[in-house]
Amino acid sequence: MTKPTQLYEGKAKIVYTTDDSDLLLTYFKDDATAFNAQKRGTITGKGQINCAISRHLFQMLEAQGIPTHYVDCPSDREMRVKAVTIVPIEVIVRNLAAGSLCKQTGLALGTQIDPPLVEYCYKNDSLGDPLLTRDRLLLLNLATPEELDYIRQMSLDIDRHLSAFFQECGIILVDFKLEFGRDRQNNIILADEISPDTCRLWKQGETDPQARILDKDRFRQDLGDVESAYKQVLERVLGQAK
Amino acid sequence: MTKPTQLYEGKAKIVYTTDDSDLLLTYFKDDATAFNAQKRGTITGKGQINCAISRHLFQMLEAQGIPTHYVDCPSDREMRVKAVTIVPIEVIVRNLAAGSLCKQTGLALGTQIDPPLVEYCYKNDSLGDPLLTRDRLLLLNLATPEELDYIRQMSLDIDRHLSAFFQECGIILVDFKLEFGRDRQNNIILADEISPDTCRLWKQGETDPQARILDKDRFRQDLGDVESAYKQVLERVLGQAK
Repeated sequence: MTKPTQLYEGKAKIVYTTDDSDLLLTYFKDDATAFNAQKRGTITGKGQINCAISRHLFQMLEAQGIPTHYVDCPSDREMRVKAVTIVPIEVIVRNLAAGSLCKQTGLALGTQIDPPLVEYCYKNDSLGDPLLTRDRLLLLNLATPEELDYIRQMSLDIDRHLSAFFQECGIILVDFKLEFGRDRQNNIILADEISPDTCRLWKQGETDPQARILDKDRFRQDLGDVESAYKQVLERVLGQAK
Repeated sequence: MTKPTQLYEGKAKIVYTTDDSDLLLTYFKDDATAFNAQKRGTITGKGQINCAISRHLFQMLEAQGIPTHYVDCPSDREMRVKAVTIVPIEVIVRNLAAGSLCKQTGLALGTQIDPPLVEYCYKNDSLGDPLLTRDRLLLLNLATPEELDYIRQMSLDIDRHLSAFFQECGIILVDFKLEFGRDRQNNIILADEISPDTCRLWKQGETDPQARILDKDRFRQDLGDVESAYKQVLERVLGQAK
């Protein structure tokens, strides 16, 4: 067995090579960043929690016919995944208005968005992950029009499955970020993670605008109880997944 | 004759009512602003120059079948226009990469864009005129899908006519901003102005990246010779218009 080599260290995960050139190993860290890494901190236990939540959500999506990079979890912070080349786009699906959408458009927090918005940001830290129009994305050759149509449709399908799943957990899926990759056969599959780091999740029935938050906004906005919110999401997801 | 009432003072123009409720009078000021009015100054003679350039370009476009708000010019800083309700969108047409497109995407200044990009910003000073995707624009109800398709096609037609006209003036039309309005019959017509305040214009054959600039970028970037650049555009436009 060859020693795993660190390929890349991201803000929340480290990616290693494995014996199998078609597989990579991702290690989920406790590190948390926000506002394009201007705010940094640690959420104790986040690595295990996000690894477990992502695992369950990837398995659920695979069962619904969505191709993902998930293979298995050799430990509670490690996920083996199919090796892909990441499409440098952050896909954001929005069911309710929040975050940058409110800041940039003046829409009120929580405004229902029906049909959901599928948006694209350029995955480029030095540019600050800017919003992309479809035309800009194609001009930059980040994806082909066919790939983009496929990614958009897959994102809407994922939204449908995730929203229904979270609803059964008593959680409202406000919005979320997805990343996709091209595998060795150039197929587009879902990559990265799905967790309270990448989703806005609100407790159903909770009307207090701070108490309802179960995601990284607790860290972004210094609301406290970050760990317990993440744990609550995991417990609800595990309870539902059983 | 009723006294004209000031309806609205913008950054570069003042709008007055007229005796005829279907017409407004716009007065072109020498005031210049940039970066969402964080930079302010005066370009002596700009009012007359922009009024004359806009007049000639609106007449040229009308002759090509583009409906505009232009009626006539009672004085050298005044333009009578059809009263419209402005669609709160700034339409930007890009033939070469410059300005915010370069800053936001990393594209090199002057990159050829073919076919041209038609982009939309939310005309909203307090939000900083943010870029809008088509979906965000429709979500905000700023225009109907039919209006937006019409505006997009008209903008591409205008680009074709303006690019050809400026080429004959020895000027490259890099990009420009348009505003549209709804008239009393709810028809969409071209409004605002077309001038070195609203267009990026480069001298053909001039390779020096500063010397070639004949537009408000001279003011934005403190390049000097702002008045003479504006005058040069006017002279070339008048020479061509004769």
